Amino acid sequence: MVRELDLVRWIKERAAATGDDCAVLDCGPWGTLLATTDSVIDGVHARWHVDGPAVFGYKAIARGLSDIAAMAGEPKWALLAACLPHDATEEEAQALFEGAERAGCPLVGGDTAFGPTPYAVGTVLGIAHRKGPVLRSGARVGDWIVVTGPLGGSLASGRHKTFVPRIREAQELHETCDLGAMIDLSDGLSTDLHHILEASKVGCRLDAAAIPRHGVPLEKALDDGEDYELLATTRPGRLPSFATRIGVVTERGAVLVHPDGREEPLVARGYEHGR
Amino acid sequence: MVRELDLVRWIKERAAATGDDCAVLDCGPWGTLLATTDSVIDGVHARWHVDGPAVFGYKAIARGLSDIAAMAGEPKWALLAACLPHDATEEEAQALFEGAERAGCPLVGGDTAFGPTPYAVGTVLGIAHRKGPVLRSGARVGDWIVVTGPLGGSLASGRHKTFVPRIREAQELHETCDLGAMIDLSDGLSTDLHHILEASKVGCRLDAAAIPRHGVPLEKALDDGEDYELLATTRPGRLPSFATRIGVVTERGAVLVHPDGREEPLVARGYEHGR
Repeated sequence: MVRELDLVRWIKERAAATGDDCAVLDCGPWGTLLATTDSVIDGVHARWHVDGPAVFGYKAIARGLSDIAAMAGEPKWALLAACLPHDATEEEAQALFEGAERAGCPLVGGDTAFGPTPYAVGTVLGIAHRKGPVLRSGARVGDWIVVTGPLGGSLASGRHKTFVPRIREAQELHETCDLGAMIDLSDGLSTDLHHILEASKVGCRLDAAAIPRHGVPLEKALDDGEDYELLATTRPGRLPSFATRIGVVTERGAVLVHPDGREEPLVARGYEHGR
Repeated sequence: MVRELDLVRWIKERAAATGDDCAVLDCGPWGTLLATTDSVIDGVHARWHVDGPAVFGYKAIARGLSDIAAMAGEPKWALLAACLPHDATEEEAQALFEGAERAGCPLVGGDTAFGPTPYAVGTVLGIAHRKGPVLRSGARVGDWIVVTGPLGGSLASGRHKTFVPRIREAQELHETCDLGAMIDLSDGLSTDLHHILEASKVGCRLDAAAIPRHGVPLEKALDDGEDYELLATTRPGRLPSFATRIGVVTERGAVLVHPDGREEPLVARGYEHGR
């Protein structure tokens, strides 16, 4: 067994990737191209015969849009590689591609195959903000930790099939705040925050009482994942109305502060790929 | 059942895609970005436990490189979305990504998941030649039809796992000839030539005796597919040594001329996706 985290590290070492949500590619005078690719697999990320093909198309592209949002970029184009079941109907195929279109990014190309396990792989290309892309590695000691919306219960509620990538929120944050780092919450707050801490070589104190939740217990807001809200760090100051301060960046360690003042280590218990 | 050809038409109508091998995307002063995505699925395009994971990585990227070559572009970056079997070892995962790297394009990002059917989806990004991309739709009456190498028997011989995308050959053709249309031979000469004829609204006379073959009967060279040589049309003139003239573009119809002078319609009998 091999975990995705190990592989991502390995890819990073071997392929000069950044370890960020998107590849950051220099296109000279045009700007900085952002590129990301994400899978939605039957039985893993959605269920073909229960959720329907449109969810595959939508989620494959929306996951990529969320990656672009995590770097405060502007999505430009999407491609979809789809694998349909051998007995797929034309209606199913159209639903898949219409789902992808509903994510709201021009679909400019794709590939269709037929196989035993349906999937959709979305590739989204965008352009970085003129202020540059926001990376995972930019968090500074003293930064506030902020989140763009309530967390938890995404899989149980079905929100993971219909989430709206926080593209505008990301751009507003980047334009009105002094952002340090940003990531989209796919693996769960406790895990994705550790991604920022590791990339930025910093620590955190997370204020449990401040974490906005979808009516779920704290641990679900921390660990459920697939929220697709944004987690950012910013210099202290005025925040957009949609952003909630949930903690502060420290020099080292990852501490969760409970409402009664009790402290415990913040452990990454979110989605671990390949478990 | 739905055929990929129908879907490709549908995508073209709905999504303003070109129907060409790559999406053609305007990046202003930097140039024209070419983007393509291709699947390699266990049991469909290769066999995980027979061919090994490296073939999946290699072929997923090499198929994209061949698409870039078909438009005479220069590959720049690649992304790989991989689905590994649940019992995958780290060695298998590394072999997959090393296979992708061996295709020769910088791997800048990716996504790894685990599921019941292994696959690799490669996305390749490139930049169009300064003379512009070569499309399927540019064939002109009187153009010679040329091919970059021998055809047939790719699946039987295993060449489909190790082919070298004709990137340099494409650029040399574009620089030294007056190209009309170009495509890479993935579905088979008889089918891919029809793609050019339909996109360009022209016909052809194909000279059976002139088609270079890998020691296979004529019908295999016409229909086998997965050759990944280039099929181009060009104004008559001097050709690079690797290029063989195999026919001429006419106003309408698709005719195969046998060595004895007998003529018959050229029927697309190559790979039909989803059959």
